[in-house]
Amino acid sequence: MSSTLYTIEPIGFVRSELRELEEAPMQGDEGAPEAWLELTRQAASGLMGIQPGDELILLTWLHLAERDVLQVHPRGDLTRPLTGVFATRSPDRPNPIGLHRVSVLEVTGQKLRVAPLEAIDGTPIVDIKPVLSVDSSDR
Amino acid sequence: MSSTLYTIEPIGFVRSELRELEEAPMQGDEGAPEAWLELTRQAASGLMGIQPGDELILLTWLHLAERDVLQVHPRGDLTRPLTGVFATRSPDRPNPIGLHRVSVLEVTGQKLRVAPLEAIDGTPIVDIKPVLSVDSSDR
Repeated sequence: MSSTLYTIEPIGFVRSELRELEEAPMQGDEGAPEAWLELTRQAASGLMGIQPGDELILLTWLHLAERDVLQVHPRGDLTRPLTGVFATRSPDRPNPIGLHRVSVLEVTGQKLRVAPLEAIDGTPIVDIKPVLSVDSSDR
Repeated sequence: MSSTLYTIEPIGFVRSELRELEEAPMQGDEGAPEAWLELTRQAASGLMGIQPGDELILLTWLHLAERDVLQVHPRGDLTRPLTGVFATRSPDRPNPIGLHRVSVLEVTGQKLRVAPLEAIDGTPIVDIKPVLSVDSSDR
């Protein structure tokens, strides 16, 4: 949609008991399990300072999403009117980045155990950020 | 950091009176101005349903960030110890995606007027999502 492209290089991958999209709840607070975030060796030094009890925003690449969809029925409910994807949390969107708020349960070397997480096993991890006190802004 | 790469195609660009990083506050709630989000013609139909008063999470590509930095002094304050970038909101990180919580002031065709926004003029827009009631998760 623009001539300038940017490249995402995953910093790691989700390891979860959720193997299929069909098993996954739509939102983390809808019964999602805990999961491991397994970082690459290179990225792991970026975890320094993260501790159990921290609240994080995990950014993932929703690799199974459809990128050419711009309008959807929210939550796949056909009785709800077609809505622009930017007004929904549909995984289908031009740049399918997932946002997941998680709590840190354990930190071991290059892995974090977190919960709840509705992303399936193998989902690429794009970024990890701390939750700010008032909102979720940064520059 | 991994063999699989993904490509981000901006869905639009920030239009702001902030022209230089030096003018920009570090967080939106630290005195940032309003700004326009100018979507590409193709992406604009994804805005359907967004209205003034809506609270959105804007995802940007922090195109001036350094991607090979994994540890920083938080907020550039050298008296604070080196910390992993994933424990900070530093723009410097392997995949420099910015998260900004904004309110919608006006919607006109393929543009949204929003506030507050600390991103500078020309910052590529990656995605737009509604704020959920309880947190900021999705799959």
